[in-house]
Amino acid sequence: MFWVKVPFLSVLCAVLFVTNGFVTADSNDCELPPGLREEIAGYQSVVDSIFHHIVSGEYAGKTWQSLLEFTDRFGPRLTGTKQLEDAIDFAVQEMINEGLDNVHTEEAIVSNWQRGREWAELVEPFKKNLPMLGLGKSVGTPPQGITAEVIAVESFEEFDHFTEEQVKGKIVVFAPAWVGYGVTGRYRYESPAVAAKKGAAAVLIRSMTPFSIGSPHTGTLQYDPDVQRIPAAAIAVEDAMLLLRKFRRGDKMIVHLKMEAANLEPTVSRNTIGELEGHTFKNTSVVVVSGHMDSWDVGTGASDDAGGVFISWKAVSFLKAMGLRPRRTIRAIYWTAEEVGVEGADAYERQHAENEEEEFNVFFESDSGTFEPIGLDFSGNSEAQCIFAEIAKLMPGFDEFTYTEGTVGSDIGTWERRGFPGVALRNKNENYFWYHHSEGDTMELEDPVALDKSTALWAATAYVIADLSIDIPKDIVENNSN
Amino acid sequence: MFWVKVPFLSVLCAVLFVTNGFVTADSNDCELPPGLREEIAGYQSVVDSIFHHIVSGEYAGKTWQSLLEFTDRFGPRLTGTKQLEDAIDFAVQEMINEGLDNVHTEEAIVSNWQRGREWAELVEPFKKNLPMLGLGKSVGTPPQGITAEVIAVESFEEFDHFTEEQVKGKIVVFAPAWVGYGVTGRYRYESPAVAAKKGAAAVLIRSMTPFSIGSPHTGTLQYDPDVQRIPAAAIAVEDAMLLLRKFRRGDKMIVHLKMEAANLEPTVSRNTIGELEGHTFKNTSVVVVSGHMDSWDVGTGASDDAGGVFISWKAVSFLKAMGLRPRRTIRAIYWTAEEVGVEGADAYERQHAENEEEEFNVFFESDSGTFEPIGLDFSGNSEAQCIFAEIAKLMPGFDEFTYTEGTVGSDIGTWERRGFPGVALRNKNENYFWYHHSEGDTMELEDPVALDKSTALWAATAYVIADLSIDIPKDIVENNSN
Repeated sequence: MFWVKVPFLSVLCAVLFVTNGFVTADSNDCELPPGLREEIAGYQSVVDSIFHHIVSGEYAGKTWQSLLEFTDRFGPRLTGTKQLEDAIDFAVQEMINEGLDNVHTEEAIVSNWQRGREWAELVEPFKKNLPMLGLGKSVGTPPQGITAEVIAVESFEEFDHFTEEQVKGKIVVFAPAWVGYGVTGRYRYESPAVAAKKGAAAVLIRSMTPFSIGSPHTGTLQYDPDVQRIPAAAIAVEDAMLLLRKFRRGDKMIVHLKMEAANLEPTVSRNTIGELEGHTFKNTSVVVVSGHMDSWDVGTGASDDAGGVFISWKAVSFLKAMGLRPRRTIRAIYWTAEEVGVEGADAYERQHAENEEEEFNVFFESDSGTFEPIGLDFSGNSEAQCIFAEIAKLMPGFDEFTYTEGTVGSDIGTWERRGFPGVALRNKNENYFWYHHSEGDTMELEDPVALDKSTALWAATAYVIADLSIDIPKDIVENNSN
Repeated sequence: MFWVKVPFLSVLCAVLFVTNGFVTADSNDCELPPGLREEIAGYQSVVDSIFHHIVSGEYAGKTWQSLLEFTDRFGPRLTGTKQLEDAIDFAVQEMINEGLDNVHTEEAIVSNWQRGREWAELVEPFKKNLPMLGLGKSVGTPPQGITAEVIAVESFEEFDHFTEEQVKGKIVVFAPAWVGYGVTGRYRYESPAVAAKKGAAAVLIRSMTPFSIGSPHTGTLQYDPDVQRIPAAAIAVEDAMLLLRKFRRGDKMIVHLKMEAANLEPTVSRNTIGELEGHTFKNTSVVVVSGHMDSWDVGTGASDDAGGVFISWKAVSFLKAMGLRPRRTIRAIYWTAEEVGVEGADAYERQHAENEEEEFNVFFESDSGTFEPIGLDFSGNSEAQCIFAEIAKLMPGFDEFTYTEGTVGSDIGTWERRGFPGVALRNKNENYFWYHHSEGDTMELEDPVALDKSTALWAATAYVIADLSIDIPKDIVENNSN
């Protein structure tokens, strides 16, 4: 998961979502259109059938098995790499084999950052390797690396007290305590520019995680176009705290940092699309189910976000195989280039901007883990909320249906912010950030039963929404960003 | 903690100890020497006083604070490095400042392995960095590294099915499921020789841990003197399993391994000694309390084994400061070069072999974590067991006093195997191997209250044993190893 950088209030909303600030909708307080409550209740048997087939029937275990074979076959899928494009080709061919409709890709011009070899070490007052991961889009160091004295702070406020003279030529360590990805994530995005403004040579940030076994966690940074771009990397929580304690005691420290990272010329990647075409509406009022195909180049990106891709993919495949075809099209989209800045979704949005109000109804995205599901998160206007809550009653055992006053997914955020309803998977992801963007993001995090339940919940909800007699209401504001 | 390689039965005993196979002594079934039960009961007030001073009195928090300052100041302490020797010098000076008796060091010739830069990556069929740590004492690769096809197996038995022709020139991955350190640890020790016998170019082992966030765990290997020495490294559990699954599916894989590791000429290090001298016996019937000063070159070796050093050190310092001087000497020893093969303790044993039966009574070692203590593990003959159990009753709230039919510490194992009683700290170390020999072995594992309790339990038990009217019984067998 990449957390899209938006104005501060939106970041706060994202945090509310990630933690536990939500409003639970009570549909009994709602006035629904005449007959809709009864109509929704009429889907109970088909919902039960979808769950039965996927969780305990012929599709049980298949989401996990497909996800395993996929991540084992292609490994991590960094934007700009052949293995991402190979994975996309594979998905296209498999969806064709499964008989999905309108299987194709749509191109996007994307960033092309490569890591190269890299290392960091404390060289004075004692030697210690500092396990690290360069931040996505970081520039590299000169070939000989950077060897410089360390300044370590816990916050931007603390850094304010340092003068340019004190900072110039130094490696600045930012070691903010973990609060949450929305709040603490600012340090990953902003530290390089903040430090460079005062002449720092490089930046090391404490990894964005509440728990560590000496593992670094990567992710993108955001340079300020008006400020020198300096190398930036994440180090382990333990090392960041060690350097902070030593600095505060007055210990002079020298760190050597070497990064071969480079931002190459932008390249072409593809969003990947396969559909279960609606029997009444084809290219209008589409229900999008999605995840992102790209990952960081660590672990195998099983959780971030191949899991989201596969529950979206298999939801459509299994509905198709079960012979269920709703009124509206359910379109599975596997976004490209999410991690480097939601670039695939942004390209798709531009390409579909002209008729988007007619083309789309609801956007689903799963990009916060596919651990044991406990419900869904919704965003949308009050009428949408009422209908979501009524649909929620159909889903057996997933009683955390929550309404979020913000966005529920990064790729779909651009549509949500303009009034399209959004849906995300609510799951037992309390430990998601232990592994996020680290070498620990692998199949070890994925469980067959949890994935079956996730796929079933995704499929059943998408099916009901796509088949209802009315669209989910939306209040579209004009897109001024394109 | 290094687990000393001993004949197979001893390894099994060690496993029994590490997991939960133990015999709880019930001293009520014992015939103690006349009056001893009453004599031991008479120590209750001094035991309570020791606990009070260390856990809630003027020494509360001081073990943790000293450990923090020490690990922050010297970092990891690999045998052969200046920072290990600096740490030893510091300990000597501090113990002198604290007024301990007979503070000195005793030299040992030790291994001098250095890691150098190292990396491993899967290069075919897709690219993936493989986080790794070369195993201690491994040889390096040629300067250009080794690029070779992979064979992956789960066990030695599975590897038996491969012919020399199949193995020759390959990189062999051993990915044994984690059972426990004693059983699974064999793969770290033995894999390089097992694979080299069939002509393998290098070995990668699954890290010795039940839980992973993509972190590798180092530790020593044991070459067979009659077999070619090949480079060997640990990779993360997740990557080992990925390679094993791919190999079993028939995927051809190429790995590139580069290690600058080198075994330099042996060098001189030192065991570090400070005492609380007995008022009746000085250099006879000594009670040794110990941990090892060296660590691997990852993390800061806070848990393995600076924690053991500091509870031993501070137990003696606090008893001294409290004005408690027992009949027998309590000797704190901080062993050197444990991780590379118990070399410091072996040297000490040789240097003290001549009069060892007279010189020593009981050996304490803490080298399995200093998490929340729950009791003590003992080894010794049945008379010793009875007395231990009676002493155990004095210790408030630490009711897991267990008797082990094996050894309870690696440095002290040589004496235990010859009949000297041994004592180890029993603590809530269920997650010890999550961090063991990895970058995660840092102060984040250490808790001030747990350390206070550990130091108090260590001090009180050592004091009572050192002050009793009789020695703890022992059945010494002759040392034939020197």
